[in-house]
Order: sequence, then structure tokens, then C-alpha cells
Amino acid sequence: MTLRIAVFGENRHEKVDPKVQEIYPEGMHTVIADCLREHLAADGVEAEVRIALLDDIEDSLSEEALAETDVLTWWGHMAHGDVPDEVAARVARRVHEGMGLIPLHSAHYSKPFKLLMGTTCNLLWRNEAEEERVWTVSGSHPIARGVPHPILVPEQETYGEMFDIPAPDELVFVSSFTGGEVFRSGCVFRRGKGKVFYFSPGDQEYPVYFQRDIQRVLANAVTWARPEHHDQAPVKIANAPRDWFRGEEVTHVI
Amino acid sequence: MTLRIAVFGENRHEKVDPKVQEIYPEGMHTVIADCLREHLAADGVEAEVRIALLDDIEDSLSEEALAETDVLTWWGHMAHGDVPDEVAARVARRVHEGMGLIPLHSAHYSKPFKLLMGTTCNLLWRNEAEEERVWTVSGSHPIARGVPHPILVPEQETYGEMFDIPAPDELVFVSSFTGGEVFRSGCVFRRGKGKVFYFSPGDQEYPVYFQRDIQRVLANAVTWARPEHHDQAPVKIANAPRDWFRGEEVTHVI
Amino acid sequence: MTLRIAVFGENRHEKVDPKVQEIYPEGMHTVIADCLREHLAADGVEAEVRIALLDDIEDSLSEEALAETDVLTWWGHMAHGDVPDEVAARVARRVHEGMGLIPLHSAHYSKPFKLLMGTTCNLLWRNEAEEERVWTVSGSHPIARGVPHPILVPEQETYGEMFDIPAPDELVFVSSFTGGEVFRSGCVFRRGKGKVFYFSPGDQEYPVYFQRDIQRVLANAVTWARPEHHDQAPVKIANAPRDWFRGEEVTHVI
Amino acid sequence: MTLRIAVFGENRHEKVDPKVQEIYPEGMHTVIADCLREHLAADGVEAEVRIALLDDIEDSLSEEALAETDVLTWWGHMAHGDVPDEVAARVARRVHEGMGLIPLHSAHYSKPFKLLMGTTCNLLWRNEAEEERVWTVSGSHPIARGVPHPILVPEQETYGEMFDIPAPDELVFVSSFTGGEVFRSGCVFRRGKGKVFYFSPGDQEYPVYFQRDIQRVLANAVTWARPEHHDQAPVKIANAPRDWFRGEEVTHVI
Repeated sequence: MTLRIAVFGENRHEKVDPKVQEIYPEGMHTVIADCLREHLAADGVEAEVRIALLDDIEDSLSEEALAETDVLTWWGHMAHGDVPDEVAARVARRVHEGMGLIPLHSAHYSKPFKLLMGTTCNLLWRNEAEEERVWTVSGSHPIARGVPHPILVPEQETYGEMFDIPAPDELVFVSSFTGGEVFRSGCVFRRGKGKVFYFSPGDQEYPVYFQRDIQRVLANAVTWARPEHHDQAPVKIANAPRDWFRGEEVTHVI
Repeated sequence: MTLRIAVFGENRHEKVDPKVQEIYPEGMHTVIADCLREHLAADGVEAEVRIALLDDIEDSLSEEALAETDVLTWWGHMAHGDVPDEVAARVARRVHEGMGLIPLHSAHYSKPFKLLMGTTCNLLWRNEAEEERVWTVSGSHPIARGVPHPILVPEQETYGEMFDIPAPDELVFVSSFTGGEVFRSGCVFRRGKGKVFYFSPGDQEYPVYFQRDIQRVLANAVTWARPEHHDQAPVKIANAPRDWFRGEEVTHVI
Repeated sequence: MTLRIAVFGENRHEKVDPKVQEIYPEGMHTVIADCLREHLAADGVEAEVRIALLDDIEDSLSEEALAETDVLTWWGHMAHGDVPDEVAARVARRVHEGMGLIPLHSAHYSKPFKLLMGTTCNLLWRNEAEEERVWTVSGSHPIARGVPHPILVPEQETYGEMFDIPAPDELVFVSSFTGGEVFRSGCVFRRGKGKVFYFSPGDQEYPVYFQRDIQRVLANAVTWARPEHHDQAPVKIANAPRDWFRGEEVTHVI
Repeated sequence: MTLRIAVFGENRHEKVDPKVQEIYPEGMHTVIADCLREHLAADGVEAEVRIALLDDIEDSLSEEALAETDVLTWWGHMAHGDVPDEVAARVARRVHEGMGLIPLHSAHYSKPFKLLMGTTCNLLWRNEAEEERVWTVSGSHPIARGVPHPILVPEQETYGEMFDIPAPDELVFVSSFTGGEVFRSGCVFRRGKGKVFYFSPGDQEYPVYFQRDIQRVLANAVTWARPEHHDQAPVKIANAPRDWFRGEEVTHVI
């Protein structure tokens, strides 16, 4: 079954900041979408990757569009406030129904992520081009497959704890920075039938999404976050009569 | 330090339903508040317990009132919609700052709980006066101290899985019902600096809050949920200069 | 890459108990192995399934044999004590290195599982052919894919809490029984680079492994438990000089 | 109720290494015991603190001695192998029964901790007197009460990930070091009725246990780890007849 991916890009820094334009002349979303296409093809995962921009968000993240999206990556920063509340609620509902969500970097403050977390999602930050080292702390997680320990990001914005999130269901990566801060940089959350993976590397002022190891994580995450197509959960029936679950014969085979 | 507790009661079923009036003639909140006073006194915990009703919610759960509340218990059912959104957001913010929250029974659908969970909080239900058995599944949790295994509730509304919540940070109780359903009935969540304990027994049509074992859980939970008065977390500073955390001498003693 | 599965069967009840012989004339391991072959083939998962018996355990679970095993299912009951300590330790080490382990039913008391848990793994039990209902409590877990909610097992041995295990990393299933007990019947643990899924249905006196839904869980679990082939974790180097992780150029692509 | 604490000290480095003798002339255990006495007294916690040494381990950690111990702190390094296997198993059993255990620093490799974890407990290390910064990542944990964010340890042995432990039930502290490594330095585990808190600062070559903030963590941990005196869990009965849990009247009060 084709994995249907939407790459949401705010695409604002790219329009107003020459430094960002130089790194990402065609937008960060283009680089993210291209690397997903390439890595998933190499992995043998049949996938369709489309781009969804803030400028056309009512269309690109409409009910209909989201209904046909399996996994949504989300990069936003300066324009979180321009995402309509109803779109954010719609995205959260789709996660409840099974869509995967991959919030990236400053999307810790995006509306859908905050709705799904129920916390402030505050953190400490400093933009001084420090080195980030992304250490794997889960020995068996598919999202960490094939990446070095640590992944080195030569220059990055520094994020630091306390990161005000619920304790992740699974903690995959922890980063340190030149200045000494640490950050839970790869965090798994399950919400309803949907899976969420927050991944912090990727400030717009540094060419982070061009790094092969970072791309590997994105591709791993998207594959992991696909819906599981459970019929049973969460509940479809609400008020359930006694013995509602009986009545079908149990099938014995072999 | 005195533990300052507020017992929120919707107090609507008690006004309109003769069956509920008969069980709780002075309101469910009165029974909950009284049992907390009695058990905490017996435990040697200095506590003040006040009642906060939906009818005076703008006062009883004002910014000022919440600022002086350490732990808030919450019972609501038919009138979740009458809780103003701003009050619900205020309660959630206070939890982020450290206030404990104990949502009871149908408060799985209360606005503050849903804001803190980020999920639908849906469940399956049936009101047929079934027996509930509340089993402890955590061998070392203070909230389960001193209760039998299982706690038997002779008649209760049935709640069943899938309960659409994030995986609890700690699962303390799991219930079964006569009809065969199971339910994660005692769930710990940490959100910001605040602790949340959802406890499902307590439908208004049954005298559940008169049971000594149930009262024991409520008293345990309130004591456990008190703020820890951390200075450091979550972050107060946001944009932090390099080496912001240096400068004070490390103190060596003994 | 072919998924290499070993199905460990104690194969003792089948030799001495006519009731078990009638249900499983060719041994429980045969039914488990056959259903894995069938379901994985239908799923399009290339797999090799071999049987490992207690009678030839030094060969079938030798270092060499385990080194070529990706996932090991384990059913044992009356003869846990006949498993040599060194074989149990060897199995645990292979889990640390990445092999998946699926302990079934009474294997809660098997030596490898106890070594990996660090607890007594005690539970409460009663063999009175009660109905078991296996409820899914995780809305997005691949092990629960495609099974009804609940799975009904018409007759089973009853297992009940407290089940003395560490809190599972992910709780997938919770069962109830006719007598009112509950049990955490589907539990995920990660140990080193290996994944463990304990699944409790399957007493030898009932034809549980002939049920299609139970077989579906086994096939899901085996697929999920395959090694992730991480190079980086856990550590291979121990005493690490400063800057050991630097030296290779960071690769930027696209 | 008096909190009965035993401070286990290996007391070997102190005998053979002049550098350690200079820092801890009366042994590391003496400093740990004294600081616990002082801090708990200041906290108003009634406590008795005794010392248990490797040289008298058969007496100081006998069945009788452990039966009267509520919380055991454990520091060991060069002589893990000299702890008899039976003593290690006895300590683990007492944790299952409710005793708290606080393994410190190199006790990640102590026999009782490894028995309770079920993993290799491997880690990466380097002894170059690097700065350690201990960051709180849980906003509401009692073990982090009253400590700065971060705690600065001017010179310490470096520990780094992968730390091969099960995912902690609660992650309280994460450290970074000058060289860039990160380490999960404060980890909560629950095993049976007992609580375990692993805390990594404290190499013998540095005066870490003289730091007031580190002492604060030790005192918080010991108070937190006290047994909860649950009657019900884990199971005392094994083979349970149907309805074993019925028969006593439910008590309704107030």
C-alpha cells in the first residue's frame, strides 16, 4: 500500500531572510520532500510525497486532503500564529484517527503539537551555531536504524531542558550542545490511533536537512509513523449493551 | 506546610435527579470534602479543604483562588459544557505550574482533563449496576497504599476500553466489570510541574464515595499530588546566553 | 532479508497428558510453527521457521543456532527447571544483542524471561476453563493490528494480577476472566538491542493456538520483534578517549 | 515511623589509593551516611543510618539485617566480584519485597543492580576530570526537589550513552560532560514492591559527595524510596479459587 506523505512547510523564513534563502533557495520543504522520496525509494517503500504550504493550508490540509494523508511532517517557526485554529484541530483529530505526525525543530511550538501534548512545550534556546551531538538512547528503536552514534550536526541552534513535554512514550535521542545544554531531541508519543515523533535538529539558518544522517532519521520516522489500520481502537461504539462483543463464532484453524 | 485542597463539584445531578439526591442529599462534593478532611487528619497531614461549585466557578476557580490551591479534585458529568473555556485553560495552566489535579469518573470528559491529555478521552460505557473490581497493578505506588486487592464496588456504571488517553506515566489500577469489560481505572500523568491522577470509580447513581477503600485512594492521591516546589523546572528563562548557569560557587559541605 | 524464527517447545505435557495429546497430537510447537509460516506467507514476509525442543536444547539453542535466529518464541511450563542455566543466560545475551523473544503463557516463569525482567514474575492463577477476553489498550500498536476487540478465548486458564513484572514499556493487551480477575496479557519490553513481547493466552489444556485471532497476534509479534540491526547501540567501545566520535566528515546530500 | 537506612560501602579504593584517601579519609560511606543524617534531620524525617561494609557483608547484609532495612544505598567499584552471589540475590529479593535501593555511580555494574535490570548495564566512560552538568528533565519529581538546574559538578568521571538499561520508569536527570557525551544520570525503576533510583555522579577520585546539591538528591531519593507497606501486592496467594476476593462486607462510611 502506497505511503501517502505530506510535507508541511511554513515557507516564510525562506521568503524574508537572505541567509535562509541561500541555504534553501527552493524552500526547506523541497529538501525534506526530496530526501524522503530518495531514501524511501532506496528502502523499497512505495511512497507518494506531496508538499503542503501555509499559503494554501486550507486546501492542502483540508479534511479531504488529510483523509488521504498517512503521515504529515511539519516545519514551522515564525508564523505558527497564522495556522488557523480549525486546521490545527483538524490535524490533531486526524492523528487521533491514525495519521502519523512528525513535528520538526521549532514545531515544538506549533499548534497541532501543543494540542496533542497538553503542555506548554517551552524550552530554553540560544542561536550561536553550536555543535549538536545526537545520541541514541534506545538500542532497539526502528527510528534510530542506520545512523551513527552520535550524529554530529556541526552548527545548530541550541535547545535545552527543561523541555516541557509529557514524558515521551519512548525516548530515542538525547542531544548535547557545545555550551553544555542537553535536550530530548527524539521523542515518540502515541495519541489515539496515531503516532507522533518529535525531532529537534533543523533550524532554518543551518543546512541540517542536507545531512545524510538526519535524512535517514526522517525516512525512518515516516515509515514508522504509518497508520496501523486497527479496526478496533479507539472505540467506535460508546454506549455498549451487555455482551455486545459476543455473537460471532470463534474461528479455529490449522 | 498546609495542603490546600479544592473539591470541585458540578452539583447538577444532585439538583435534578431524585435517585442522586437520595444518595448524596448534600451533594457529592460534600462527601468527598468530608472524607478528605477525615482521612488526612488521621494521616497527620495538615490540610484545608474547600468546596468549589460550578455555580460560582468564576470565583471559586479564579486566578487568585487557584493560585492558593495545591490540589484540585474535579467531579463533573452532565454540565461539562457549562465550564467556561477560560476557566478550563486556567486550570490547565495551574497544573503546568504545579497544582495537582484529580479528575474523578465522568471527568474523563471534563475540559481541563481533555486539554491536558490531547486525546479524545473517549471510552465505552453501560449503566447497569455491575460489580467493579479495582485491581492494583503497581506494587510500590503510594496511591495504592492501604487498599485491598481488589477493591470491590458492588454497583457501578461500567467503563470499558479502549480508553483513548495517552499511555499513563504510571498505571496504578485496572478494573473489571461483571459484563467482562476492563478499564484502566487509576492513571498517573505528569504535565509540566503538576501531577494528575485520574480515578474512574464514582458514578452519581451509586454510593461509591461512601466506601472506605475508595476514600483511602482519594486521600492517598491528594497527598501524592501536592506540588513539589521545584524552582528549576520548567524553564523560566527562554533565550539563555552561553554559560548562563555558571557563576555561583559550588558549595561543598561536611 | 529472511526472518529466521525458532519456535521453542518444551514438549512435555504433550507426552504425559492425554488431554493435551488430544488437542495437540503433534505438539504445541508444531501448531505454533505452522501458523507462523502460514500467516507470514500471507503477509508477504519471507520467513524460515524451525522448531527447537527441550530434548535437543544444547543443539537447537547453541551459540551457533542462536546467532542465526532473529526471533525466538518460547513455550514451557512443567519443565522450566530442565532448561540449563547456561542456555537461559545465552538466550538473554542474544536478546541483548538484538534477538527478539516472545515468551508465551506459562513462560512467564521461564528462566530467560525472569533473567530479563529482574522480578519474581509471580502471578495468581486458577484452572477452571473460564472465558478470557483480550482487550486492546494501545490504539496504534502493530502487534494489535487486525484483531477484534476483544479477542474471545472461550476457555482458558485464569491468570490474575498482581503480575510481578516491571511496568511494560508498552502495554498492548489487558485481559479479564469470568471470575473477575484482570491480567496484563500483552506486554512489550525492550532489553539491550532486543525486543520482548510477553503474551499470556495459551494454556496446554485448551486449543488456544488454533484460534485465528491468537495466531494473528503471534505473527504480528514475530514481525515486530525482528532485530533492527543498529550498529551504534549498545556501546561497543568502553573507555572512550575525548573526541572519539569526531574525525569523519559530515556528509551533505541533495 | 523511623526510616531505617543502610549505607553500603565497598571501602576498597579508600584503602589502596592515596588520591581517594585524601578526599575521603574516613571512607566514602562515612560522608554519605553523615550527609543523609544531616539532611533528613533538617527535613524532619526521623531516620536511623547505619553503615554496611563489604568486609562484613555477610553480617551487615544478612537476611536479618536486610529485613530491618528500609532503604539501602550502594557504592562499589573495584570489588563488585567480591560480593557473594547469594548476598546479591538476597538484596534483589528484599527489593522485590519493598526495600528501596539507591545504586550510586559505578554501582551500575554491581550485582544487585544488574540482577534487577536484566541488561548488561554497559556504558561508555573516560576519566579526565570533566565538568558534569546534571539537568532535571522531570518537572514534578520529588527526587529533584530543591536542586539547581543544572547541578554543576566541577570535575567528574565521564559516563556516556548508550547506557544499556531498560527504559527508566521515570527519567529524572540527564547529564552532559565537557567532552560532549550525555548520560541518563538519574533513573527511577520499580521492581516488585521496591523502588530503585540509580544516580551516577560520585566517582571516588572527586569530592562529589561533599557537594550540597548532590547530598540534597541523595536525601530526596532515600525519602522517596521508602517502602509503601502495601499489603496486597505482589500476590501472596498463587492458586486462587473462584471468588476468593469476596466475603467481606464492603464498608461505607461518613
